[in-house]
Amino acid sequence: MGNEKYVIISADGHCGLPIHEYERYLDPGFRPAFATWVAQKEAERKLKLESNYEFIMGWETSNEEGLRGAYDPSVRDKELDADGVAADVLFADADAVTGMGSPPFDAGLAAGMQLDAELAFAGARAHNRFLADLCSTSPERRAGIALIPLCHDPIRAVDEVEWAANQPGIRGVMIPTMWRDRPPYSSEVYEPFWAACAAANLPVHTHSGEAPHEDYNDHLGIYLAEVVWWAARPSWHLLFSGAFERHPNLKFVVTEAAAYWIADTKWKWDQYMGGGHTTKKMAALLEGKISKLPSEYFGTNIFAGASTMSKEELRRRNVLGTDAVMWGTDYPHPEGSWPNTFAKLQKDFVDIPVDETARILGGVAAGVYGLDLAKLQPIADRIGYTPTDLNQDPDLMASPTAERDAKWWLEDYGITPTRP
Amino acid sequence: MGNEKYVIISADGHCGLPIHEYERYLDPGFRPAFATWVAQKEAERKLKLESNYEFIMGWETSNEEGLRGAYDPSVRDKELDADGVAADVLFADADAVTGMGSPPFDAGLAAGMQLDAELAFAGARAHNRFLADLCSTSPERRAGIALIPLCHDPIRAVDEVEWAANQPGIRGVMIPTMWRDRPPYSSEVYEPFWAACAAANLPVHTHSGEAPHEDYNDHLGIYLAEVVWWAARPSWHLLFSGAFERHPNLKFVVTEAAAYWIADTKWKWDQYMGGGHTTKKMAALLEGKISKLPSEYFGTNIFAGASTMSKEELRRRNVLGTDAVMWGTDYPHPEGSWPNTFAKLQKDFVDIPVDETARILGGVAAGVYGLDLAKLQPIADRIGYTPTDLNQDPDLMASPTAERDAKWWLEDYGITPTRP
Repeated sequence: MGNEKYVIISADGHCGLPIHEYERYLDPGFRPAFATWVAQKEAERKLKLESNYEFIMGWETSNEEGLRGAYDPSVRDKELDADGVAADVLFADADAVTGMGSPPFDAGLAAGMQLDAELAFAGARAHNRFLADLCSTSPERRAGIALIPLCHDPIRAVDEVEWAANQPGIRGVMIPTMWRDRPPYSSEVYEPFWAACAAANLPVHTHSGEAPHEDYNDHLGIYLAEVVWWAARPSWHLLFSGAFERHPNLKFVVTEAAAYWIADTKWKWDQYMGGGHTTKKMAALLEGKISKLPSEYFGTNIFAGASTMSKEELRRRNVLGTDAVMWGTDYPHPEGSWPNTFAKLQKDFVDIPVDETARILGGVAAGVYGLDLAKLQPIADRIGYTPTDLNQDPDLMASPTAERDAKWWLEDYGITPTRP
Repeated sequence: MGNEKYVIISADGHCGLPIHEYERYLDPGFRPAFATWVAQKEAERKLKLESNYEFIMGWETSNEEGLRGAYDPSVRDKELDADGVAADVLFADADAVTGMGSPPFDAGLAAGMQLDAELAFAGARAHNRFLADLCSTSPERRAGIALIPLCHDPIRAVDEVEWAANQPGIRGVMIPTMWRDRPPYSSEVYEPFWAACAAANLPVHTHSGEAPHEDYNDHLGIYLAEVVWWAARPSWHLLFSGAFERHPNLKFVVTEAAAYWIADTKWKWDQYMGGGHTTKKMAALLEGKISKLPSEYFGTNIFAGASTMSKEELRRRNVLGTDAVMWGTDYPHPEGSWPNTFAKLQKDFVDIPVDETARILGGVAAGVYGLDLAKLQPIADRIGYTPTDLNQDPDLMASPTAERDAKWWLEDYGITPTRP
């Protein structure tokens, strides 16, 4: 590997039109509802401006040009270039500050809260058409994530998968984080959807954001304490209902919900399955539902699009799995590393071996999204960073047994892995 | 401390009458409903026997005498003695195998699922009367946890606290783990209850068991993956809604839901509050809700009755806080260490310093439940274990800065603790 430039693929990016411009992608019958929704969104922005004017205007003014990359492909490419990013994964809801880049009827990150299935599908479809257009420019650099309000109508969701599978640049689908009063994701009613996604090789995503706000009484701390869990939750509903067993090719990605939660789930779940006095009665009941240890589904079926990972997550990378976690800039959201990604990488990756860095920054994402590293390497060579640029030792490689050595719980509980 | 015997207080024990015997503690008006409930429980046992006869009969036959300690105080003392336990904390639902030791109308660990508030309070009251009787024998060895269906009727719950505060041996209260369709625990409607518990110095508990089974489609793995989270959840609803700020004396204990979840919550929550580029906008919004770092509420307001802790939790004890975690045998449940507690302690505590062991095995619990160590030491001297018995080095003491040194995230994020 030497001192070659890393192919950086940001596993967490956002795109979206200024809300009123979505009208041209919307089925005409929804225009009256759309006008009402736009007016409501604009009123919400006004309220936000009243309470937080300085931050909002400061952010929007100082990033005016770069924020247009949410919908303008040439600006997006320029911003990726400046950030050293060869390709990125495109979720909806470009504007995390005042919501003026959301799909019609909030069919994006908050889709579960849209109770009207017709509106949810209409908004998703409008965004997906825009997304296909955006990704048709520089498709080798884009992994567009189509919106599918799965729990609102599991049958119609399958049609949407089939449409998405035929759009160049669309390389995954996102489902609502919360199913709310609809059937939970462990239900058989979703089986044709998992089958369709596996067949089309489209990884399924949740993205953090949604949570049961009605339980929080406006206490932001409670929301922060839970939001990761709600985004990650569907992953184990799929795992333990056997979805990955029935569809070994099915991939599920939890995006912008950190990665630290994987550490305790791996040992705890393996203990339930594989050993330990307290859980023998449980293990017997689990038999037959899954054929591997729960931890072994990470990196083949379950992934984390962990965005700008914390130092602690990078330290624990071998427990989390350097085949399971993907870094991301969260462009163009203010909580991410854009437009200062180089400085962030220099600070956080200095001690990480080169091969592990290559996987976390791009290798895993290339596999999950089917991006062509041969096409991306020349882009990286033009705009990217070498190990030396990141103050790394270019000769530092991970021990071949690093991952295996990190699984302390196999020895503690006398658990035998199903793969060597 | 030297080689003195440890005062072991099990922070997780269970008690309960054989179900039909609860009738004499029940208000007479509930007898018809009680007869129906008993018949239903007996039918459930029959079903369980059909599918799992060997395990159930094996467990019940080989522990026939010891299981009577669920309600017979002299047998309980004998079993505690044999296990080296000086005192224990008594939750409801003695029979984890077929549910034949549950409070009327399942008002114990599954109280949230009892939709009828009248039945929930009647069942709780019957159990609480039995509990007061049981704890009146050897009250220095018992911390009875009264059942209070808080979310079913917050006003009536306050009356129940006042009753419990006057019963010798009742030293805490348990509320339903899940509020379901009732107001969440961050709601103002519960404020008089938190005030009453703080005034009476009765720690409030959740105990693992309940979870939204309707989401699981009978997939046991999903239940196992979530049950700890549902039990722990109310702790941060209280924290971030400011309950510990308004009532600095209020204690909340999460029982039999492990302790590992505390590790990631501490650094992540402190990061939200105290620093880190990504969360500056959040920190501003949190200001004023709580006055200390979230991690600083563990050990003063939030505790884990962690039962038979895993080796990993003992290794991470200084992150979890040896002032916040309490060991327990789970007597008389089969998933605990009873009746082989000595062997379990020998295996798991060999490397742990003596002072930390003393806190985890009993010191923290003595403080939380107001148990008198001076009265328990002579019992421990008669039945307990020395550091040497546990194969420990009796001279090994923790570094005075062990806890502070374990908080790596303060340095990583440049966070200043509010207490030294």
